[in-house]
Amino acid sequence: MELNVDILTLFPEMFDIFNYSIIGRAIENKIIDINTHNIRDYSVNKHKKTDDYPYGGGQGMVMTVQPLVDAIEGVKKNNEGKVIFLGPRGKKFDQEMAKDLSKEKNLIFVCGHYEGIDERVYNYIDLEISLGDFVLTGGEMACIPIVDSIARLIPGVLKVAESYEDESFYNGVLEYPQYTRPECFRDDVVPEILLSGHHENIRKWRRKKSLILTKTRRPDMFKKISLSKEDKKLLMENK
Amino acid sequence: MELNVDILTLFPEMFDIFNYSIIGRAIENKIIDINTHNIRDYSVNKHKKTDDYPYGGGQGMVMTVQPLVDAIEGVKKNNEGKVIFLGPRGKKFDQEMAKDLSKEKNLIFVCGHYEGIDERVYNYIDLEISLGDFVLTGGEMACIPIVDSIARLIPGVLKVAESYEDESFYNGVLEYPQYTRPECFRDDVVPEILLSGHHENIRKWRRKKSLILTKTRRPDMFKKISLSKEDKKLLMENK
Repeated sequence: MELNVDILTLFPEMFDIFNYSIIGRAIENKIIDINTHNIRDYSVNKHKKTDDYPYGGGQGMVMTVQPLVDAIEGVKKNNEGKVIFLGPRGKKFDQEMAKDLSKEKNLIFVCGHYEGIDERVYNYIDLEISLGDFVLTGGEMACIPIVDSIARLIPGVLKVAESYEDESFYNGVLEYPQYTRPECFRDDVVPEILLSGHHENIRKWRRKKSLILTKTRRPDMFKKISLSKEDKKLLMENK
Repeated sequence: MELNVDILTLFPEMFDIFNYSIIGRAIENKIIDINTHNIRDYSVNKHKKTDDYPYGGGQGMVMTVQPLVDAIEGVKKNNEGKVIFLGPRGKKFDQEMAKDLSKEKNLIFVCGHYEGIDERVYNYIDLEISLGDFVLTGGEMACIPIVDSIARLIPGVLKVAESYEDESFYNGVLEYPQYTRPECFRDDVVPEILLSGHHENIRKWRRKKSLILTKTRRPDMFKKISLSKEDKKLLMENK
């Protein structure tokens, strides 16, 4: 097993999503393993409660400390993994973080719900990650794309044809436009150069399109590119 | 129905995730509706193929234009919705965008897979959204949190207790620390002020904690706060 993922959640069924497509195949091939653990099962409360009213008043409910901490420790017992909480105070997830986390052997994700978690749970968390500046119904919704993004970087998860590194964010530029058959769809034709068979011209055309797309759509990314001589020439041609 | 969501995907089963928790309840209560459509069903290819090799060479496969465009038009026929593609060139998703999209009546999400989609599909797309600067196995993984984040803003989707707007990103500051019972967990006690019953002091303590957390964890968010006189005083107390 290259990566073992444990997920602590109140909604284990939500992670059935990993039975499909690329991640499902990687689990079948025993390259990665994803296990869910219901936080409710760890509650010592006789009604298996996992939330309560906030001290100091206010609307909403807060997830209690006991079930969360016992779940973390229960899962960690056999697993010296890094404990990750998905929450708004966290560092924003990006490709760099995905790469770092894909080198770990054991990851434990803690999904919160309701208003938040009892602050004391943070003492048992190694890393907080935020998916972005928006509110979700629960940490599960952030956990899913984050685990997906990490898992696809594990060697063997993607087939060679899928693992292609011209992808956006790999090289700091957006991907060039892609075309496939048919040559003509409702009067909309494939750029002639792509049919020319002239590899060097195709490479330059693609690089130019990547640069222009990045400049237009993601000026923040464009600023970080160290443009080669050829890049500058390609951009000049466009003026 | 307050919001109708159509999702075009090669993996409709992945969206079973919306049967659970808050979104599942909203669908049951007929506040929102989420329908998936398999792109493969629209392929006129005799093997129902939906991808092909890229013109101009290169690794990986590209999703063909015909099934995607026919799926978009097929779903749109009865539905004048906004067509959203989930891809890396898009505007980055945030709470502001979630709010805007929650005012629409019909949203059609197009989930790509493989290396990308034939460029000609973009002529049929109204808006491209990116979840963030990381690579996913497919658009489904971005679609799920985005639909979740939009849906929870529709009136009636959240119960009053859940809809609480002290949440991070609503007010431009991170949420203050929350505590719930028990008062003491393994020697770790709830801050005394929260047990005092003094509402005004609790409000100030929470505001101070929010400001400090935001300043420490999200200096980019902190810079955008227009600090009140009280805010400045609370921050001074902390020095």
